[in-house]
Amino acid sequence: VTSGGHAHQPPRTLRWESGPPGQLVLIDQTRLPERFVELPVRTVDELVDALQRLAVRGAPAIGVAAGYGVLLGLSGHEDCEPSEAVARVREAAATLVKARPTAVNLAWAAQRMVRRADRLLGEGARGRAFFEALLEEAHGIASEDDAQCRKMGEVGVALLRDGVSVLTHCNAGALATGGMGTALSPIYVAAERGLRVRVFATETRPLLQGARLTSWELERSGIEVTLIPDSAAATVLQRGMVDLVLVGADRIARNGDVCNKIGTYPIALAAQRHGIPFYVVAPLSTFDPDTAEGAQIPIEERSSDEVTGFHGQRTAPDGVRAFNPAFDVTPAAMVRGIVTEEGLIAGGDEARIAALLGRQ
Amino acid sequence: VTSGGHAHQPPRTLRWESGPPGQLVLIDQTRLPERFVELPVRTVDELVDALQRLAVRGAPAIGVAAGYGVLLGLSGHEDCEPSEAVARVREAAATLVKARPTAVNLAWAAQRMVRRADRLLGEGARGRAFFEALLEEAHGIASEDDAQCRKMGEVGVALLRDGVSVLTHCNAGALATGGMGTALSPIYVAAERGLRVRVFATETRPLLQGARLTSWELERSGIEVTLIPDSAAATVLQRGMVDLVLVGADRIARNGDVCNKIGTYPIALAAQRHGIPFYVVAPLSTFDPDTAEGAQIPIEERSSDEVTGFHGQRTAPDGVRAFNPAFDVTPAAMVRGIVTEEGLIAGGDEARIAALLGRQ
Repeated sequence: VTSGGHAHQPPRTLRWESGPPGQLVLIDQTRLPERFVELPVRTVDELVDALQRLAVRGAPAIGVAAGYGVLLGLSGHEDCEPSEAVARVREAAATLVKARPTAVNLAWAAQRMVRRADRLLGEGARGRAFFEALLEEAHGIASEDDAQCRKMGEVGVALLRDGVSVLTHCNAGALATGGMGTALSPIYVAAERGLRVRVFATETRPLLQGARLTSWELERSGIEVTLIPDSAAATVLQRGMVDLVLVGADRIARNGDVCNKIGTYPIALAAQRHGIPFYVVAPLSTFDPDTAEGAQIPIEERSSDEVTGFHGQRTAPDGVRAFNPAFDVTPAAMVRGIVTEEGLIAGGDEARIAALLGRQ
Repeated sequence: VTSGGHAHQPPRTLRWESGPPGQLVLIDQTRLPERFVELPVRTVDELVDALQRLAVRGAPAIGVAAGYGVLLGLSGHEDCEPSEAVARVREAAATLVKARPTAVNLAWAAQRMVRRADRLLGEGARGRAFFEALLEEAHGIASEDDAQCRKMGEVGVALLRDGVSVLTHCNAGALATGGMGTALSPIYVAAERGLRVRVFATETRPLLQGARLTSWELERSGIEVTLIPDSAAATVLQRGMVDLVLVGADRIARNGDVCNKIGTYPIALAAQRHGIPFYVVAPLSTFDPDTAEGAQIPIEERSSDEVTGFHGQRTAPDGVRAFNPAFDVTPAAMVRGIVTEEGLIAGGDEARIAALLGRQ
């Protein structure tokens, strides 16, 4: 198996292979960057395992996987009675949601599939037609995500000129979505248009998504990438080695405060100090209408083991405790703008955020 | 072999064991934190190997090792003619200096030993007396370093109160010196005096000196330590989890700009933003009278392999390039003060720096 990379074509993280029986095929992100392995997923339990092992990760990608995953609940039972089909869909959805309980997109996609199944039952659909209509719904989730990524890319590409140098953090790329990514989408669109783009990618301890995933997907797509330790980002900004920062977001408050992977905030601090614009790329679904400001966002603390070692190898003495917050909060005032599928929002433009959320 | 830790007693990185033949005994830092191994060093070549493998590291510790290392050139020849003894001393010094050509303390200590040997020749010393006098010189280098560390600790302890929480970066502790360290010396003195101190230690990618060394020496000394990813330092400061920052320095310019391990500057940025005092602890020998400001300091770029792998395990795709600057520069204006063996210098107090350097 080769990586099958083509210049400027981001990798496709998930695809559905028609059957019978149909199967979901994932790039196994636990094997990257050493091996490019496509993982066939044929049952709900196999997908639960893939989700829990982080073989597939990134909120949008998880949502797309969940859509197809619900469908896997019907595998081998494509011709069953509609009431049994709905029961199978509900069971698959419930099982998937438990796989990663905090992943909002997972629950959202699973519920969307259940609602579609309920409507199909009401419409009298059955057998193959029921299955195909549900497959269309899962394809819809995937293609909407793909389109949203492209829209963000087309909005964000206006920030890039030929020869631009960009700093990014963690992996907010194709591997995290059903499309060309969030933070990396403007870069892929720029590359399609023949602009030369150079990317500095932080390695992103503790889980090294930058080293393992971002550098892999950019290199494979023919985009020049230079890996740096997280702690060298400030030096890169201090020396003017990059023109702008592009990062993703896990949640954005109504006031524009941005919650993202730990290490984002110190990059924003250094960008502000050195007058380098700091942009966030995220779909409108990332904005949380129930969160007024960043301080209200609960920050997940993950296991000490991620900090006291790597890939099963210990680096710190036994018994040393670690503090391992998964995210940090960057104040809206440090954000030059937020690139969304509906256009660019100036950092901290609460009125515009409220207007866009109201329209959803 | 156990670690032999005692409450509040920092480890002793180097010691001389009398012979015949005498030998230098080092804590092998390449084995930490998994194993506490004391490495006997009996020849100049063995010390070259230890220096190159970073079994002993840290500018002051390297200087102390070099003093004893020159003496190893006489091992088995303690009774030789004074002219041969001087030739052996010179040869040992030249060999050691080549082991790590950029280590200023290594050359300084080796030259000091050669000058002492030259004077001994002039004074007519010979045989055992020659050797013992030279051993006294090496002991002198070690005990001066030890005393300097303690003085810095006694100056710096004034910044600490009972229950204080300190953030440090990299390893500027006992393992880097012939005494109780630089940045960590105020913490050891505070602990001796019964003050409770809590330390947050960054893991310090790429070489993980914080995870491997700082957490080891603090824990072993009974001082509470919490390890964090480098990228979480800003969050620790943002949340007010520490009262002050204590770091070491590799070089300090005449204007007070501080060159230290990569990752120091973003910590200073976050400390400034959140009003948390940022202190540097370094002996006066760290000030470079030939460097007017930080921008003039050449920053060593180390191998990509340190960034594309972790503890010998590859993390990035083959062929991905990395940018791996070893140090960064923190502007004097962000430094609240510099703790030296001659007292506390206010950050950026150029007149005081000039006065202290003039007195040396």
